Amino acid sequence: MATSTQCSEGFSPFIKNVTNIKGVLLDITGVLYNSAQGGGHAIEGSVEAVKRLRKAGLPVRFCTNETQCTTKAIVEKLQRLGFELTESEVFPPIPAVCSLMKARALRPHILAHPASLSDFSEIDQTNPNCVVVGDAADMFTYHNLNKAFRILISMETPVLFSLGQGKFYREDDELSLDVGAFVKALEYACDVQAEVVGKPSKTFFNTALQDMNVSPENAVMVGDDILNDVGGAQKCGMYGIQVRTGKFRPQDEHHPQVTPDAVVDNLAAAVDLLLTHR
Amino acid sequence: MATSTQCSEGFSPFIKNVTNIKGVLLDITGVLYNSAQGGGHAIEGSVEAVKRLRKAGLPVRFCTNETQCTTKAIVEKLQRLGFELTESEVFPPIPAVCSLMKARALRPHILAHPASLSDFSEIDQTNPNCVVVGDAADMFTYHNLNKAFRILISMETPVLFSLGQGKFYREDDELSLDVGAFVKALEYACDVQAEVVGKPSKTFFNTALQDMNVSPENAVMVGDDILNDVGGAQKCGMYGIQVRTGKFRPQDEHHPQVTPDAVVDNLAAAVDLLLTHR
Repeated sequence: MATSTQCSEGFSPFIKNVTNIKGVLLDITGVLYNSAQGGGHAIEGSVEAVKRLRKAGLPVRFCTNETQCTTKAIVEKLQRLGFELTESEVFPPIPAVCSLMKARALRPHILAHPASLSDFSEIDQTNPNCVVVGDAADMFTYHNLNKAFRILISMETPVLFSLGQGKFYREDDELSLDVGAFVKALEYACDVQAEVVGKPSKTFFNTALQDMNVSPENAVMVGDDILNDVGGAQKCGMYGIQVRTGKFRPQDEHHPQVTPDAVVDNLAAAVDLLLTHR
Repeated sequence: MATSTQCSEGFSPFIKNVTNIKGVLLDITGVLYNSAQGGGHAIEGSVEAVKRLRKAGLPVRFCTNETQCTTKAIVEKLQRLGFELTESEVFPPIPAVCSLMKARALRPHILAHPASLSDFSEIDQTNPNCVVVGDAADMFTYHNLNKAFRILISMETPVLFSLGQGKFYREDDELSLDVGAFVKALEYACDVQAEVVGKPSKTFFNTALQDMNVSPENAVMVGDDILNDVGGAQKCGMYGIQVRTGKFRPQDEHHPQVTPDAVVDNLAAAVDLLLTHR
């Protein structure tokens, strides 16, 4: 009854529990900066917002599905835009899938962006027994998709890894198809279900949480992707804050499957909320 | 009890009812001929098999999901390979989708093979309010898929037509991704379900049956695609014969969803079966 009364007073579950937040996960593209050919630009107030979280003593990790470049390149790009962060704080899918393949003695055929390939350099890629698909962008040609398809269809039990499962992203103010769409094409053609490495995988979120030594109920994810950031974090037991930047679209505020714990204009507003209710 | 006894004697439903066959639908690629760059070649015995059906007085229609060229080009290619047929006997998806769009006042953005586009020439393509996807092959580029995607995602209620829903086809002895895979990519990205025009759509099969004035229970479809030819025909009330040519793979004989009424080596063997049990 006490809970019911509190709810009727208009407190969102997020605001009620904000004093317990001990760690913050941030999406990168569409939250810290807007992607564009040639590098993009920081979203207003985001550089300062990250600094304020650190100053407040809240551990921060950067949980991204970015696979168009190496982790090193992600960090260098963000540093150029004014963000303060180190490579060890960034969690993208490629290192995660590499650990997983090593553990399972898998040798991938890789369909990914050329700029990301050096992060796979320690993995044996001879005589492939699985396929890994990242955000290959222009490399999603009929030829390259057929190459991946023919390897999968020739396997008795096809093994397919999807680095995230994004539907689309925003770049240069246009929406573009993301890796999830192309993985659906391969899944359909080969009657296989991909294993998703990256958001919204629980294992993936948990790796970043463990690195901060914070439990899901004490953590919040801030992202622009209603399904993979906000919904994924909530399924993992975290709070999920939706920002109205990046790939956000007005209909996300009435999403049929996901109700964010808060919807705010941008990362600066999310950090205001977090620090005010601390 | 009589039926049960007949079954226990080992008669397949197909063989029991073969005397009622009054019309035959044939798939083209993988049944009449094998596709290859430069034209392909007739499958052994197929030219003669079509002639034998005609000689026996059985009406024949060619029910294809071919969208890489015009109907005229399909017919000319088959005639060059020795087949006797006229354009009016061939039922591909493009004329069907054009009738449908005219009836519904739809103006398409078309993602299809350049060689097929003249069959859309009578359709208004200005200011598109739907997207049509055919087997675009090499034209399935990231750029072209994004163009189709952006039109769909900008519509309040996206309308997407898929010309067939094939998973893959065989060309030059290699399997290649078919239109169905790319439509799944767009469906996923836009949260939309495509309307399929072509096999296995009932409306599509029925158009060819009506042209012969034959009921489904008196008709048989011969195809190499277990799902779209054989399964589709059966769902429509026809018999479905699977040939072991074209995209057939040994595992199709134990398909989890479809049990053909007969599985035979090729079209010649299918016609043997049809004429023997007539």
